[in-house]
Amino acid sequence: MTLYPKLILDALATVRYPGNKKNLVEAEMVADNLRIDGMKVSFSLIFEKPTDPFMKSMVKAAETAIHTYVSPEVEVTITTESRQAARPEVGKLLPQVKNIIGVSSGKGGVGKSTVSANLAVSLAKLGYKVGLLDADIFGPSMPKMFQVEDARPYAENIGGRDLIVPIEKYGIKLLSIGFFVDPDQATLWRGGMASNALKQLIADADWGELDYFLIDLPPGTSDIHLTVVQTLAMTGAVVVSTPQAVALADARKGINMFTNDKVNVPILGLVENMAWFTPAELPENKYYIFGKEGAKSLAEEMNVPLLGQIPIVQSICESGDKGTPVALDENTVTGRAFLQLAAAVVRQVDRRNMEMAPTKIVETHK
Amino acid sequence: MTLYPKLILDALATVRYPGNKKNLVEAEMVADNLRIDGMKVSFSLIFEKPTDPFMKSMVKAAETAIHTYVSPEVEVTITTESRQAARPEVGKLLPQVKNIIGVSSGKGGVGKSTVSANLAVSLAKLGYKVGLLDADIFGPSMPKMFQVEDARPYAENIGGRDLIVPIEKYGIKLLSIGFFVDPDQATLWRGGMASNALKQLIADADWGELDYFLIDLPPGTSDIHLTVVQTLAMTGAVVVSTPQAVALADARKGINMFTNDKVNVPILGLVENMAWFTPAELPENKYYIFGKEGAKSLAEEMNVPLLGQIPIVQSICESGDKGTPVALDENTVTGRAFLQLAAAVVRQVDRRNMEMAPTKIVETHK
Repeated sequence: MTLYPKLILDALATVRYPGNKKNLVEAEMVADNLRIDGMKVSFSLIFEKPTDPFMKSMVKAAETAIHTYVSPEVEVTITTESRQAARPEVGKLLPQVKNIIGVSSGKGGVGKSTVSANLAVSLAKLGYKVGLLDADIFGPSMPKMFQVEDARPYAENIGGRDLIVPIEKYGIKLLSIGFFVDPDQATLWRGGMASNALKQLIADADWGELDYFLIDLPPGTSDIHLTVVQTLAMTGAVVVSTPQAVALADARKGINMFTNDKVNVPILGLVENMAWFTPAELPENKYYIFGKEGAKSLAEEMNVPLLGQIPIVQSICESGDKGTPVALDENTVTGRAFLQLAAAVVRQVDRRNMEMAPTKIVETHK
Repeated sequence: MTLYPKLILDALATVRYPGNKKNLVEAEMVADNLRIDGMKVSFSLIFEKPTDPFMKSMVKAAETAIHTYVSPEVEVTITTESRQAARPEVGKLLPQVKNIIGVSSGKGGVGKSTVSANLAVSLAKLGYKVGLLDADIFGPSMPKMFQVEDARPYAENIGGRDLIVPIEKYGIKLLSIGFFVDPDQATLWRGGMASNALKQLIADADWGELDYFLIDLPPGTSDIHLTVVQTLAMTGAVVVSTPQAVALADARKGINMFTNDKVNVPILGLVENMAWFTPAELPENKYYIFGKEGAKSLAEEMNVPLLGQIPIVQSICESGDKGTPVALDENTVTGRAFLQLAAAVVRQVDRRNMEMAPTKIVETHK
């Protein structure tokens, strides 16, 4: 028996690619490197992405088709190629990002997202290049806080890969899981789905050059935290708490999650949010609604820096949900508090980078 | 062979009771109803409590001892008695308690315990007989709120049973899991242990005659909630929330837990805590720190009554942790709010009792 290309291609035309329901030949997935040498056949199958889910099954199906329609004697060698460049491996992601900071809280409702948003704004005001990733799958709030709820980031081919382009607002590069997910459905996501989506927002987005890449993590401890520390070497974590005892107890757990010897992410410090209330009408008065300096005491107890105390300042004619980060106006009490917080974060990150070795990425358990 | 009592008692004296390490005769556990009829022997073993864990093994050991030391031919019949009366069965507990109200919240930190304590105080001020059981194993706060942290309730023999006597403060009968447990250990309790302790505080305590028996439940949903609805027919539940979106989402889950068709506890209504902040220095001003009327909207949406809105009123010279329930002074804004809340609860309970059948106790799954 003599093999010739048409025999092989006719066999491959019986294999349908599930991605577009065309056969391998129609779909132009058979590369022009087909070589025949006696009963030996070799060629490549070309896929769009290096992560194509049907890659293995298509290689197997092509082999079976040749054995069935040509001859079981044919010795088939199939290699795979992809039109797109592969995602860099873990450890080589975000090469132009200098510092990666996770913002976390032990429990919900303490203002973690407000702190993340305003910290990002204040760091940008200090002249740094800032990226902010809203990874809070249970309640992504960045689209609302930055008033970009209708934004739908698009993808662009950059360096041979289709990358998601972050939204730019107030000089910050922003992506939120909320751009891609209906928040009402989010809690139903199985851990794996949410983690994969988050990995894409980190690895397949055009974050470019950044001084600070802030990741707003979900409250508590979750699969999302694990995904992040398995994907990126986090420079450090900022933990947000109110002075309430119940919040502090959870903040303690949150700190332990990062410092745990399997994770080893340094704690940059604690932020005391809702530290006191000041009525705009009585600017000198501080009402310690949730107790006085609870987070400050916790910081001392756990030997971590207190990065800042953020008060609630409100006027009776002003609603709580303004929709723009207060840090945009540094002439307000709260705006100044966030600017001081940003400066403290910069100092702690510098100190951490001088005194400690880079964080190691947590290994994935197979 | 002729049997006589000394033969039998000598055999029983070889059996050691692990409870006090005496033998059954020394421990006076063999009743004086020993009867011998040919080769038939019958008598009772007397135990302190009907729930003695060694009851079965002692009966078996006594039988074996007679067969071993007297004769394998002896036909032994042993009955058991206890010096104490048995705990009434589920469904017959607390016969003198008219209404049982669970106070719950979707999440911690919303002031559930503060509301429970002040609701109890206000109901007592309205002239009702009130009992309060602090079942919040994760953070029992009643001992502190009622300033009885050093109290150690004792047991008294009442009607043939050793019953725990509740502490009395501000005219309220009070028991807390915190009197018996180190709170730092509480979260380590396996579900079963905490549930058993709670059952004892309900069933083996001298609650006597009560108009309202309030149970301060842990936040969220837990084994403790299940234990309570499996032990008592709860008249209804009061759910506490702040106006914050994150708290409301959890309050919704808390309501669904009670109205679930396996539980069927009526919702008496929602309490909006931290509804606004009023500085004592500017008594006319309301600052809606956490959003305006969030719980009111949730009550409308879920078609449950809004029982009350409790503001935060504070003076700058006054700390948040005073240690006495604010409801004690009805001349304060907050005191008046709690008195109105108590009146609303009384109205809703009356209405519920007129319009609906008594709650059924949830059956235990074996």
